[in-house]
Amino acid sequence: MPPNSFGHLLTITTFGESHGPAIGCVIDGFPPGMEITAEEIRTELMRRATGQSRWTSQRKEAEEVQILSGTFEGRTTGTPIALVIHNTDARSKDYSKIAAQFRPGHADYTYHHKYGIRDYRGGGRSSARETAMRVAAGALARKWLNEKAGITITGWLAQIGELVCDEHFDESVIDTSPFFCPDASMIGPLEDYMKKLWKSGDSVGALVRARAVGVPVGLGAPVYAKLDGDLAAAMMSINATKGVEIGAGFGSVAQRGTEHRDEITPEGFESNHAGGVLGGISTGQPVEVAVAFKPTSSLRLPGKTVDTSGQPVEIVTTGRHDPCVGIRAVPIVEAMLALVIMDHWLLHRAQCGDVEEQTPRIPG
Amino acid sequence: MPPNSFGHLLTITTFGESHGPAIGCVIDGFPPGMEITAEEIRTELMRRATGQSRWTSQRKEAEEVQILSGTFEGRTTGTPIALVIHNTDARSKDYSKIAAQFRPGHADYTYHHKYGIRDYRGGGRSSARETAMRVAAGALARKWLNEKAGITITGWLAQIGELVCDEHFDESVIDTSPFFCPDASMIGPLEDYMKKLWKSGDSVGALVRARAVGVPVGLGAPVYAKLDGDLAAAMMSINATKGVEIGAGFGSVAQRGTEHRDEITPEGFESNHAGGVLGGISTGQPVEVAVAFKPTSSLRLPGKTVDTSGQPVEIVTTGRHDPCVGIRAVPIVEAMLALVIMDHWLLHRAQCGDVEEQTPRIPG
Amino acid sequence: MPPNSFGHLLTITTFGESHGPAIGCVIDGFPPGMEITAEEIRTELMRRATGQSRWTSQRKEAEEVQILSGTFEGRTTGTPIALVIHNTDARSKDYSKIAAQFRPGHADYTYHHKYGIRDYRGGGRSSARETAMRVAAGALARKWLNEKAGITITGWLAQIGELVCDEHFDESVIDTSPFFCPDASMIGPLEDYMKKLWKSGDSVGALVRARAVGVPVGLGAPVYAKLDGDLAAAMMSINATKGVEIGAGFGSVAQRGTEHRDEITPEGFESNHAGGVLGGISTGQPVEVAVAFKPTSSLRLPGKTVDTSGQPVEIVTTGRHDPCVGIRAVPIVEAMLALVIMDHWLLHRAQCGDVEEQTPRIPG
Amino acid sequence: MPPNSFGHLLTITTFGESHGPAIGCVIDGFPPGMEITAEEIRTELMRRATGQSRWTSQRKEAEEVQILSGTFEGRTTGTPIALVIHNTDARSKDYSKIAAQFRPGHADYTYHHKYGIRDYRGGGRSSARETAMRVAAGALARKWLNEKAGITITGWLAQIGELVCDEHFDESVIDTSPFFCPDASMIGPLEDYMKKLWKSGDSVGALVRARAVGVPVGLGAPVYAKLDGDLAAAMMSINATKGVEIGAGFGSVAQRGTEHRDEITPEGFESNHAGGVLGGISTGQPVEVAVAFKPTSSLRLPGKTVDTSGQPVEIVTTGRHDPCVGIRAVPIVEAMLALVIMDHWLLHRAQCGDVEEQTPRIPG
Repeated sequence: MPPNSFGHLLTITTFGESHGPAIGCVIDGFPPGMEITAEEIRTELMRRATGQSRWTSQRKEAEEVQILSGTFEGRTTGTPIALVIHNTDARSKDYSKIAAQFRPGHADYTYHHKYGIRDYRGGGRSSARETAMRVAAGALARKWLNEKAGITITGWLAQIGELVCDEHFDESVIDTSPFFCPDASMIGPLEDYMKKLWKSGDSVGALVRARAVGVPVGLGAPVYAKLDGDLAAAMMSINATKGVEIGAGFGSVAQRGTEHRDEITPEGFESNHAGGVLGGISTGQPVEVAVAFKPTSSLRLPGKTVDTSGQPVEIVTTGRHDPCVGIRAVPIVEAMLALVIMDHWLLHRAQCGDVEEQTPRIPG
Repeated sequence: MPPNSFGHLLTITTFGESHGPAIGCVIDGFPPGMEITAEEIRTELMRRATGQSRWTSQRKEAEEVQILSGTFEGRTTGTPIALVIHNTDARSKDYSKIAAQFRPGHADYTYHHKYGIRDYRGGGRSSARETAMRVAAGALARKWLNEKAGITITGWLAQIGELVCDEHFDESVIDTSPFFCPDASMIGPLEDYMKKLWKSGDSVGALVRARAVGVPVGLGAPVYAKLDGDLAAAMMSINATKGVEIGAGFGSVAQRGTEHRDEITPEGFESNHAGGVLGGISTGQPVEVAVAFKPTSSLRLPGKTVDTSGQPVEIVTTGRHDPCVGIRAVPIVEAMLALVIMDHWLLHRAQCGDVEEQTPRIPG
Repeated sequence: MPPNSFGHLLTITTFGESHGPAIGCVIDGFPPGMEITAEEIRTELMRRATGQSRWTSQRKEAEEVQILSGTFEGRTTGTPIALVIHNTDARSKDYSKIAAQFRPGHADYTYHHKYGIRDYRGGGRSSARETAMRVAAGALARKWLNEKAGITITGWLAQIGELVCDEHFDESVIDTSPFFCPDASMIGPLEDYMKKLWKSGDSVGALVRARAVGVPVGLGAPVYAKLDGDLAAAMMSINATKGVEIGAGFGSVAQRGTEHRDEITPEGFESNHAGGVLGGISTGQPVEVAVAFKPTSSLRLPGKTVDTSGQPVEIVTTGRHDPCVGIRAVPIVEAMLALVIMDHWLLHRAQCGDVEEQTPRIPG
Repeated sequence: MPPNSFGHLLTITTFGESHGPAIGCVIDGFPPGMEITAEEIRTELMRRATGQSRWTSQRKEAEEVQILSGTFEGRTTGTPIALVIHNTDARSKDYSKIAAQFRPGHADYTYHHKYGIRDYRGGGRSSARETAMRVAAGALARKWLNEKAGITITGWLAQIGELVCDEHFDESVIDTSPFFCPDASMIGPLEDYMKKLWKSGDSVGALVRARAVGVPVGLGAPVYAKLDGDLAAAMMSINATKGVEIGAGFGSVAQRGTEHRDEITPEGFESNHAGGVLGGISTGQPVEVAVAFKPTSSLRLPGKTVDTSGQPVEIVTTGRHDPCVGIRAVPIVEAMLALVIMDHWLLHRAQCGDVEEQTPRIPG
């Protein structure tokens, strides 16, 4: 698999740098016959878009996604679907400083040493701008999963810094604020929190949760194409991710077996510590994942680093930057969850026939 | 990539069921010329081996690994290295109960519904027995990394249940107990803890940490073959894993950017919250990973489940089972870490030439 | 994909050297529920087996294939099927000469320079012995294709040296002679031809043809997973292959478009110059492939070569060797044809749903 | 590997339909640091371009290739290189006839039945227009091979219909005519031949040969990533290909072993029936491949077919079409040869270290 491609059968290949001419992706293996429009993809992109609120990066991208191939008369044809967004808001600012210095917490240092050359403008290939294409591809996967099987994918901000914000979960609240927060009572405190953070010049980490409801039993495969293994790879490949959990996650460490094992009755599972996956295969319960995002490393508070000749310098990152990259990661996590589940649906259908033909299952 | 294969260029393909005739693996892409013996592999296997202590499963496997191909006069030839271990201790006990019932927390339910048929004896393909082949393959990778670049891989038990056991870290202590515990003062408490657990009939989760020291800057690739993305997939594919962290991991959520970003001086990085990976590429610092293991689901304490016809039953799992599968996962985590790093070494060499030829780097 | 693996979804990974402990393969992605026995596989292996007639190599292998995994109570389970054959007839002869000399027309020279080390005994990994595992895996694919869809695969010897032997084609004749010759009147001439060849000490090339009947329209995929592209790769990977044709093949060069294009009527195609593939996708007509095999390079007639130190030497290859490797290639070509078609069946089912659900087609 | 991607480590993923908005490709795994310009790529594209002569298709494409990513300040960065060509000359003619009828010899019939939907304009994804992106990607590979190792790739028209045109081979003549003919004395006859063909309304097949000179010994890998296996796949994936040969090819069938085996002296190989490949690995001799192209199926001479409802119709294909697609296939064959060799160079470097470090070899 090329290093810029993801998936077994539903594959996405992304390309593009933050300040290059364009970013784009090629989606291969998508089933024929589904209606899609650029507008639908754009709607999903806007959820993630930079510039959506004053709490996230101020870069304004039109997000004018173009469908270059793979559709005919508005429907997918089974051939590769290429999407492209031209970079229209890449300011021609002075990059001479960033060119010669390694921003702490960034990929500057590692790209420089790996390749000996790097497009330093806006982080180049390591920019979170790449994730727009995941969201674009994910929009198609979400639609297919929904039409094919009524599967729904929902992500939300669960915590930011010390502030837990999904204690009272109400799915209908999520899209009412730019924070993807599922608790109406937390939106005020979140605004205060972000204001203070912004003033301080510092940034903070975040915890994003997502779940897929309606996933049939049987998706996933032993032992290196486990559903949870693929989810871990998918999530960890998102910029700034430092941790991935399925179900009870790290909480499992302190659990007893009698607590963790989800007992089964004729009515279904009695709990879901497994997060919807046993032995790498979906159980029919909601597939649940949590992803930890580190705080933004681009800060206007000065930090120590070295330049490309190894000399010590103090660095200050000006420009447009989210104080919490985790917030706008919510649609990205959703997209990756959708892509992995759809990929495994196809993989399952290849080996075992369509899901509907499977042996009946107890209620999930 | 076949679902039972792992890796980009250094690939392992494993096969075999817990109580089938044999388990084995095929290692492809291994460089020619390295000396290997079955004895070396066996030594590594014994660290993981069941039956090693009274705290882990009592199944005794001779672990007589055979090298079926890929070597000549004791050295690797560049062709596929096949390893096999015949299952000699697969007791012919009565499996009629387990055949008809789904053990909670096990893959019984998902395999049954996915495939419509399953080898239920000892968990079949979903048994942790498969991980022996990861350790076997990892033994070769560890040796190669060490000979080629002085890279060393160390794993340890960091927590079991509520008991943190790596507060006082001493690497030399790790192999002195069957717990892979790096703190001499914790071995006594661990023994007490396990005794009580054993008596109670319950099980508990564990946290395993591992790190690779000596990894050069530059291993990894944007954006779906990130070093940390591959590590997440590798670790999550191990039985009973529910979470993976790189560096600060979930601790990043509550960190500030000024705290998390690892500042750089001419002497090197001042901290390692990144866990040795920035932008998916190694920084030259130790690569650090943490893995959460759920408690063993096989318990002699009765639990609710259904049988294959959907009727409710009470299940008691007798037989040989670790009360904490996380303990013997330590060598497995080490093996997967070694395999991922070596794989990325080869991948880097393919695209960028050998590591030694890279631009000089500041001290890691 | 590992270099010793083949296929998209139905993958085979082979291992083993001619005179090592064993050869084997791992078949991954095979659907669950099909009955298989080692005996069935053995039957197919015997067709290819060396020692079958006085015209092919005299090495006698018991071909006692063992199924190590992936089946339960005689049926496939969906997990990797590992097959192994232990090398029982690897004579411990003196290999000192072959170790130091490069046999012309063999992989000795290239393996030596690529890897710096090689298992020279019997050709090591480059031995045609590897193809036994293709035939073993192919046996399962043939059975599945036949049970699932009534697809039948037939191969035959079409030419040996100058002797065309399929002018009068009668499928029922093929398995009546050790030559896989479909023309009863040619079996006598073939025997005379081989006798003379044997006496002369020389060897000769061969042309093998194969076809799959009953393949539904729609298998294959643009543009690098074309059915014919995969067939070409499959056939060219067989030892001693120098050419592959689909349908009219090289005959197309001198054809006119009006002759080559297969016209269509409501009753079906009027000809099959396409060989059952248009645009990389099956037409529903028989899939037809032809494969050219070079003459055996191991000859008792002396030839010029150099030794590993570059000095000129005269080489004579004694030992057991087919004067025409193409003959026993027939079952191998059949096996590769079956594997490719089944792989594409699964690939098609993944993206487009099962074949039966497709739009009705005109008669093939 | 996605079905629209090719290669192990140097991968190309192509997208686009003949009359869609654009065609393009993503090249992943390319080494960093090589200078490239859109102009260089365009030069190579013009060799293949439709509209180049009156003997090839009259469609005029500006072939204005754009580099969307993967370069910085004119050099490759190691990240994915995306190339795109917008379709400017896609005439909005009336496609209603072609929409409802299956052109014999075309992918119309197979795409329709596989996907249930197809972009019929100009053949959609099955159009040879896709091969422009192979040539574009091949331009980069050729440059890298040349700069890195002095490897040169040359293709030519060897036969068209009955007319053999490389009996007197002079490489310098190839690019002097639009026929890629290496024999100056054949250019006149070729023109006459094409005139008559054009007048007749019929089309004809062609044989294209290509070779790579300067390939070091050691590229390729057992047993499913053989250099010749990958070449066969590469060539057979080109539109209209019906056969592939390496070295002596189908001529091997009638050869004796004493003739075919290339004897070795301290000065090198005495012949090259192997075509530069033994056991799937390059010998250091020129790598030689021949590819058979079928005659164009789009003819203004009427042919029998059915429409999508199965009714018989007579079809006449008007529009711009080469009477011999094989001619402009020459640069495509060269491109695929370059891509395969460079891919194997990287693959070799990954496993065995750089080519220069290999054991010395006898003259090739």
